[in-house]
Amino acid sequence: MSLYSPSIEKLIESFERLPSIGHKTAARLAFHMLNASEEETNEFISSIVNAKKNLKYCSKCYNISDTDPCIICGNPKRDQSIICVVEDVRDVIAMEKTHEFKGVYHVLHGSISPMNGVGPDDIKIKELLSRLMDQENPVKEVILATNPRVEGEATAMYLSKLIKPLGVSVTRIAHGIPVGGDLEYTDEITLTKALEGRREI
Amino acid sequence: MSLYSPSIEKLIESFERLPSIGHKTAARLAFHMLNASEEETNEFISSIVNAKKNLKYCSKCYNISDTDPCIICGNPKRDQSIICVVEDVRDVIAMEKTHEFKGVYHVLHGSISPMNGVGPDDIKIKELLSRLMDQENPVKEVILATNPRVEGEATAMYLSKLIKPLGVSVTRIAHGIPVGGDLEYTDEITLTKALEGRREI
Repeated sequence: MSLYSPSIEKLIESFERLPSIGHKTAARLAFHMLNASEEETNEFISSIVNAKKNLKYCSKCYNISDTDPCIICGNPKRDQSIICVVEDVRDVIAMEKTHEFKGVYHVLHGSISPMNGVGPDDIKIKELLSRLMDQENPVKEVILATNPRVEGEATAMYLSKLIKPLGVSVTRIAHGIPVGGDLEYTDEITLTKALEGRREI
Repeated sequence: MSLYSPSIEKLIESFERLPSIGHKTAARLAFHMLNASEEETNEFISSIVNAKKNLKYCSKCYNISDTDPCIICGNPKRDQSIICVVEDVRDVIAMEKTHEFKGVYHVLHGSISPMNGVGPDDIKIKELLSRLMDQENPVKEVILATNPRVEGEATAMYLSKLIKPLGVSVTRIAHGIPVGGDLEYTDEITLTKALEGRREI
């Protein structure tokens, strides 16, 4: 016999299916939901329903957005001739937080990973190339900001080989020791990259 | 300008309002929701809606349940003459997990706490007393299993003074060193309680 009533059991299971939520947290969230007012619950549910209904991919950069084109692609102040290529929607947010980048983005929605069965056709590479071919909006530079992991590096290499022949400048974000980091505790690969990437000051 | 689209922003805020969920986890949950299939989302939402709709308080013990009386009160194998008084619905689950207690429960839904403006009339004490007065189902023993904190102790004292005159035996769960605990790291109050509660072996 289960310790909880079926409806609670089901609610806890639902929360448990979410990422990074264990059984105890799921139970806490479930009981919070049960004690919440009708208004609170409705607001919670409608925020999910609305997000699922309203959000679509920007037809230019494939960022997730309420509008098409998204607020970044549709902003006339952004430089449409510089495209920063990232793996994921959240990477756009991370870049935007720097307030440094004034170009536009292209979200690949993944990286090439033969181990996981993800090939070049499974991510938004075709779409990136067709943006670069567009004569009306010439692109000067593509910044490859995929993650500095095996898959991200492979994707960056693959993209650079495809894009260079188009006469577009291709750059890769710098790898090195993070600000506030410690040489002693930096792994060798990062340190090698930091050495390779040294600049005159 | 916000970094996220309004619908995502709203969804993240919704998740952030849940207990023990910070901004980063809320963002992770929100993006998980956005990537989830329609079926998954509907299942999640309906589990909340159904739980809110189906669950009610058991009219005997005030435990939360799909049925009235709840599965414990309605179980003929449970000893209706022993009532274990707990503060919260989750305490029932904790007790049930021991598989030791074969009586029934009474959920107070709180503890007396003048600091927080919770008086005896704000929790289910009247309801407990009327159960004890019921001549058809005589109660032999009331086990006070409120939490061993100031409020729980005060509630236990208050209840014991009310119940003893009714000729019902009143007991309090034992306080002491938890199993696997360490004398060295046990606080003085727990140690004092452990000494007071010593038993011959």
